[in-house]
Amino acid sequence: MINYENRYAKLKDLINRELEHFIPKKHPAGIYDPLRYILAGGGKRIRPVLLILSCEAAEGKPSHALDAALAVEALHNFTLIHDDIMDNADTRRGRETIHKKWDKDTAILSGDALLGLAYESLLKTKSSRIGKIAQFFTNGIIEVCEGQSRDKEFEFRKNVSLDEYIMMINKKTSQLLVTCVKIGALIGNGKSSLIDAMENYAVNIGLAFQIQDDLLDIFADEKKFGKKIGGDIREGKKTYLLIKGLETVKDKNDKALLESVIIKKGVKKESDIIAIKSIYERYGIIDSATNEIEKYTNRANEFLRKINDKTSREMLLWFSYMLLKRNM
Amino acid sequence: MINYENRYAKLKDLINRELEHFIPKKHPAGIYDPLRYILAGGGKRIRPVLLILSCEAAEGKPSHALDAALAVEALHNFTLIHDDIMDNADTRRGRETIHKKWDKDTAILSGDALLGLAYESLLKTKSSRIGKIAQFFTNGIIEVCEGQSRDKEFEFRKNVSLDEYIMMINKKTSQLLVTCVKIGALIGNGKSSLIDAMENYAVNIGLAFQIQDDLLDIFADEKKFGKKIGGDIREGKKTYLLIKGLETVKDKNDKALLESVIIKKGVKKESDIIAIKSIYERYGIIDSATNEIEKYTNRANEFLRKINDKTSREMLLWFSYMLLKRNM
Repeated sequence: MINYENRYAKLKDLINRELEHFIPKKHPAGIYDPLRYILAGGGKRIRPVLLILSCEAAEGKPSHALDAALAVEALHNFTLIHDDIMDNADTRRGRETIHKKWDKDTAILSGDALLGLAYESLLKTKSSRIGKIAQFFTNGIIEVCEGQSRDKEFEFRKNVSLDEYIMMINKKTSQLLVTCVKIGALIGNGKSSLIDAMENYAVNIGLAFQIQDDLLDIFADEKKFGKKIGGDIREGKKTYLLIKGLETVKDKNDKALLESVIIKKGVKKESDIIAIKSIYERYGIIDSATNEIEKYTNRANEFLRKINDKTSREMLLWFSYMLLKRNM
Repeated sequence: MINYENRYAKLKDLINRELEHFIPKKHPAGIYDPLRYILAGGGKRIRPVLLILSCEAAEGKPSHALDAALAVEALHNFTLIHDDIMDNADTRRGRETIHKKWDKDTAILSGDALLGLAYESLLKTKSSRIGKIAQFFTNGIIEVCEGQSRDKEFEFRKNVSLDEYIMMINKKTSQLLVTCVKIGALIGNGKSSLIDAMENYAVNIGLAFQIQDDLLDIFADEKKFGKKIGGDIREGKKTYLLIKGLETVKDKNDKALLESVIIKKGVKKESDIIAIKSIYERYGIIDSATNEIEKYTNRANEFLRKINDKTSREMLLWFSYMLLKRNM
């Protein structure tokens, strides 16, 4: 039996090694120093690994997918740099963000340059379908921007429905995973039926991943999670839990407490955060979130049946498992 | 004889009409409203017209180059949106900038989305060389970012040489024109010798254009120029005139006045601006700039000889002329 964990670790190491010389060692330092800094910041490298595994699922050679894998990791980091400016985030993965360590202008411009370098890497891919590959990549960028715009828009709205929330996280989280699997499968010369199945896998695993993220924010083991729990409540973020809670909770006091998260744009008191956690437990909001995660994960994994190669299929099943068991 | 002015006006109108429905009429308004706004802001549409003329110079059909032409105009506007944030510019072409009319986050995000839409349009181009076309486009983005980074870096440096200045404006201004001509010629199925000649044309005409821009900033007819003259001096920008002036001027008082532009990061007094203008005249700085513009223009136009089609060649000669006679 293949050791999936080991395989993932090896791919992650490969990506990390390649990223070490991804940024050109030339001037101007004003953009290339911050980019070297952010790419050295670690992370799970989920997207490039998923792209390579999708290439293998289409029975393509993983080495053919390497430039594209680096491109999606660069694209992901481009979104982080600009999102961190908009979210006023001072740290990411325990290190200062670019706009904090340098300044906003540097973060804007180095983000832009990183998107250029992402395309540069993508376009090194040798494939007769390079036009299509670039289209999928471009679509990923547009979707992520639309998702981020929705997310910002939701901050200023009182009511957001669960459907709207799912639509937003589909754009903000799932669609970049869609980009990864479609490009990977295309490089592997996969049939359109496989590409469609992989797209459905990515949409659903992305939704599961994001709802899990909302759940972890308040129910994670703080040490393993690497940050203080309850951050979303403190920032007044409209998560799956809060939206579902507002729909479900009837008791006047409990409802008022949840509403205060939105009205006050975040609740900071420790006792309030504990009370909200208890509401989520008592009203079955946690169970509901867990069910949704399971539902989307099962849906996602169903689509993996389309993969003929047994090892690839099982590797991706393990990948889903790994993605959703993180830090719980 | 072809009426070149008329031909240019017609191409410009075509671009303007197409730009009216370039931005999808869908949500989220948070990014698409600002983008419709900026694309409706006018401008000379130099880049898309140049791309189409370059396609014609390679004896290709202009209609085949339209999607790519819109893409370079979108790319240009993406750089304007983000540059205006970094330059703290409140207005552009007499209208409020996006970050002023909306806010910085909106400007960052809608700029990002516009770059996505630019690629989307570019990739609609039907060409067997689409991979190469996308590479040239990507290279343009990276060069512009490097140019902008150098420009920002120069703001904080006391000394910048003329060579460094030329290198910077090559990246910031010429290289996007290079992108236009190379993509146009490639869509027209031009030979590599033609593509090389067009690249040299674009580099040189871009340098002439930028030095002309520096000159217009202080010697333009205010009404025709559409903005107050001397803006570069007020902002302490290191232009061709200032760098050449600092190299040339020996008189202690005159030199001190020029140096004060850099030390004080801009000189605001009207009498100082008039005095600086007089220094530029007395020391032959203006003549030197005019000579440089002529030198680069002549160099540029020499390369047009490589174009076989007489009408195309003469149209581009007129284009050079138009570019450099604007508003003087």
